Amino acid sequence: MAKAVLTPQAENFPAWYQDVVARAELAENGPARGTMVIRPWGYAIWELMQADMDRRIKATGAQNASFPLFIPMSFLEKEKQHVEGFSPELAVVTHGGGDQLAEPLVVRPTSETVINHYFAKWIQSHRDLPLMLNLWNNVVRWELRPRLFLRTTEFLWQEGHTAHATYEDAVEETERMLEVYRRFMEESLAISLVVGEKSPGERFAGAEHTFTCEALMRDGKALQMGTSHNLGHNFARAFDIQYLDAGGERRYAATTSWGTSTRMIGGMIMVHGDDHGLCLPPAIAPHQVVVMQLDEGSEVAEAATRVEAELRAAGVRAHLDARTHTSFGRRSVDWELKGVPVRIELGARELASGQATLVRRDTRSKSSVPLDGAARAAASLLDEIQQALFAGSRAFREEHTYPVTDFDEFTQRVGDGGLFLAAWSGTEESEQALGEATSATIRCIVDADPPAPTCLMTGMPAKHTVLIGRAY
Amino acid sequence: MAKAVLTPQAENFPAWYQDVVARAELAENGPARGTMVIRPWGYAIWELMQADMDRRIKATGAQNASFPLFIPMSFLEKEKQHVEGFSPELAVVTHGGGDQLAEPLVVRPTSETVINHYFAKWIQSHRDLPLMLNLWNNVVRWELRPRLFLRTTEFLWQEGHTAHATYEDAVEETERMLEVYRRFMEESLAISLVVGEKSPGERFAGAEHTFTCEALMRDGKALQMGTSHNLGHNFARAFDIQYLDAGGERRYAATTSWGTSTRMIGGMIMVHGDDHGLCLPPAIAPHQVVVMQLDEGSEVAEAATRVEAELRAAGVRAHLDARTHTSFGRRSVDWELKGVPVRIELGARELASGQATLVRRDTRSKSSVPLDGAARAAASLLDEIQQALFAGSRAFREEHTYPVTDFDEFTQRVGDGGLFLAAWSGTEESEQALGEATSATIRCIVDADPPAPTCLMTGMPAKHTVLIGRAY
Repeated sequence: MAKAVLTPQAENFPAWYQDVVARAELAENGPARGTMVIRPWGYAIWELMQADMDRRIKATGAQNASFPLFIPMSFLEKEKQHVEGFSPELAVVTHGGGDQLAEPLVVRPTSETVINHYFAKWIQSHRDLPLMLNLWNNVVRWELRPRLFLRTTEFLWQEGHTAHATYEDAVEETERMLEVYRRFMEESLAISLVVGEKSPGERFAGAEHTFTCEALMRDGKALQMGTSHNLGHNFARAFDIQYLDAGGERRYAATTSWGTSTRMIGGMIMVHGDDHGLCLPPAIAPHQVVVMQLDEGSEVAEAATRVEAELRAAGVRAHLDARTHTSFGRRSVDWELKGVPVRIELGARELASGQATLVRRDTRSKSSVPLDGAARAAASLLDEIQQALFAGSRAFREEHTYPVTDFDEFTQRVGDGGLFLAAWSGTEESEQALGEATSATIRCIVDADPPAPTCLMTGMPAKHTVLIGRAY
Repeated sequence: MAKAVLTPQAENFPAWYQDVVARAELAENGPARGTMVIRPWGYAIWELMQADMDRRIKATGAQNASFPLFIPMSFLEKEKQHVEGFSPELAVVTHGGGDQLAEPLVVRPTSETVINHYFAKWIQSHRDLPLMLNLWNNVVRWELRPRLFLRTTEFLWQEGHTAHATYEDAVEETERMLEVYRRFMEESLAISLVVGEKSPGERFAGAEHTFTCEALMRDGKALQMGTSHNLGHNFARAFDIQYLDAGGERRYAATTSWGTSTRMIGGMIMVHGDDHGLCLPPAIAPHQVVVMQLDEGSEVAEAATRVEAELRAAGVRAHLDARTHTSFGRRSVDWELKGVPVRIELGARELASGQATLVRRDTRSKSSVPLDGAARAAASLLDEIQQALFAGSRAFREEHTYPVTDFDEFTQRVGDGGLFLAAWSGTEESEQALGEATSATIRCIVDADPPAPTCLMTGMPAKHTVLIGRAY
């Protein structure tokens, strides 16, 4: 077996992350600061995530569309909080076709403004509602401390934008999409989440309510994996989205937006990866099973091809690795690095004994199975692995979630990582006190009785239970 | 029947085009000059094109990836012809995160430069070749006379980029992809093409050879639908893409690039559309069959739902239109405008007689079919329509392709539209003479004997046969 090629997680987690991203050939830094090249293995994972999520989004009735990359600066300025929130992160086009532009164009950081401009045009009557659109595109937010997948100046994402007749309909939509995200992340990414509302300090610029999916990485830091915003009537007023209701009265529509991005790939890496590399949930693995042909010769080649064909016939994304000129050690290490859930090893010895070797990536355990049943055995392992990864993620999150009632104790422990459940007054002062004393933030408000009658940060009467942690 | 809502093609073709794009709800102008909003119906067509083409591209062995939107200006400057060709069309980001940038960033007009930069890094040995990548993304080329789908400042496309060990391999790849494009456009878009090499004046900036797919629109103008470029060693030298061959010698790789864009939607509109609207080839129709429920009542509703379910079970993209509160005329006109290939009309009268009405969009012919077999009849019509549209496109192109041998006659006729086959000397002067005398261009060199021994434009000895026409 070749020796480890990654910095161990326990030694230096950020270095391990960089190593995995590079060695599994997921992505590289782009030439312009903060940009990213997503290599085929990383992009194939993204395509599977997209296809899965796209089905779920369309099942809610939303339709895909495309809006322009460039937004006139004046559009952003229509919603005051929105432009304040995004101004520091904007990339601005000042020249086009050789000339200076009369009005600078912003490279979209998100598309609320341009979409709501069209909503105002398209929505006239209550019959035009709800209007539910989703975009798969790229957005740009200038990043001072970029990190591949987690924070990049340009990233790929989906952004949903909807308009509804009533505020209550917008509430429902915000909750529905949060639930779509939760199910996708738990069922397909095998990542256990805490979902809840963001505190005012962490809200989307221009939203009335922001809901979030928070996950716990293996280094004890939290990651925001997706958000769903109830924009209330803020954007409808700014862009004048009015409709005639059934009684003939003009009313403002209520709007929402919701998004998830390539950041989810970063979360998936840091939740499931280990010192041997990536560990992909089968649902989003480009190769779910790799058949490794160990020796040359037509009989071995035929047997390996047959197993691959059986896997494909069973609906498994199978790949035949027939690189017999490359060492076994290097090939095994490669597939481990790339996180392929199951390997089937098949050489002359296996053929003679009628037994193939099955290797699980998550547990790294090997077993012998009859060659005839190898494809079936591998296929049935996939479900088991998907479940085991989710169970592992949930157990890790639960084991590293601590109720805290003493602020001094909390400030001492927060540096070790993990999630903390605390009582919160619901006030801005409490949120500020937290930020001043620690580098942790309120990740979200959770639906549970406060662990103490008074706020952890200020001692004021407790209103909510919040989840606190250091985050990416 | 409601009256026509479109400007007739014969009256004003560009106005007809604008009308169709608007009334079929395909797209609208974006707020920034030359940009485009693609609405759900237009985007659903694009998604079907993407899925179809993506399968074909992956079948050649290419893998998808993602490269940055922003390219440092210095990258473009490395290939002299490339930067000269693209400079007038660039959008430039000069400010990011509130500061002026040290080096301006170009919003990619195409990605050769950034990809070849990485090719130089990734390609070391002949074992790394061929390297075949494809990107689905957005690019920006400043347009002074934008037209929806046909010429927009930002457009969506796929761009393929490959590197090969030998020049011959690059030749093969260029031809292979041209053939992938041809088959997709003929089989799925039902558009008959002329394929051939571009003349030097029309070549991609930085390419040694550019091959093109040219189609003829209903107004007699040509449209370039896709191109495949053999870049030879130009980019490999500019970006230093060298590899060690099997004998241990350092050699330059040969590279190619190839692309098709949302422009194909414009072509599809102008090849198949008529005075009643869009006419979609079934292969890329978001709804292949619409079941129109004509009357209220549970029996009619059940029958319509059953037919829709039968269609779906047969693998047809079916849609149930149960808007019985909207007039029949308006609904029919809507589906005609949107180009849905087949409609099944089903109301109380049809239910009583056991016969449904089947309407073909291409011929606008109606027929009665037994209700029990309506789904089967509609499904089998789809193949017929797909073939009929292609046959129609081919016949139109052939009928409007004229051999010409007299320049004066040609200059008089070229304004009426159509494609002209002419003898060409192969010289720059001949290409210039054409441009000075007419607004037509050489669309491509075709593989046929010249219709005359001397060049149509200059009277010099003929070297090639070229296809000439006015183009979008």
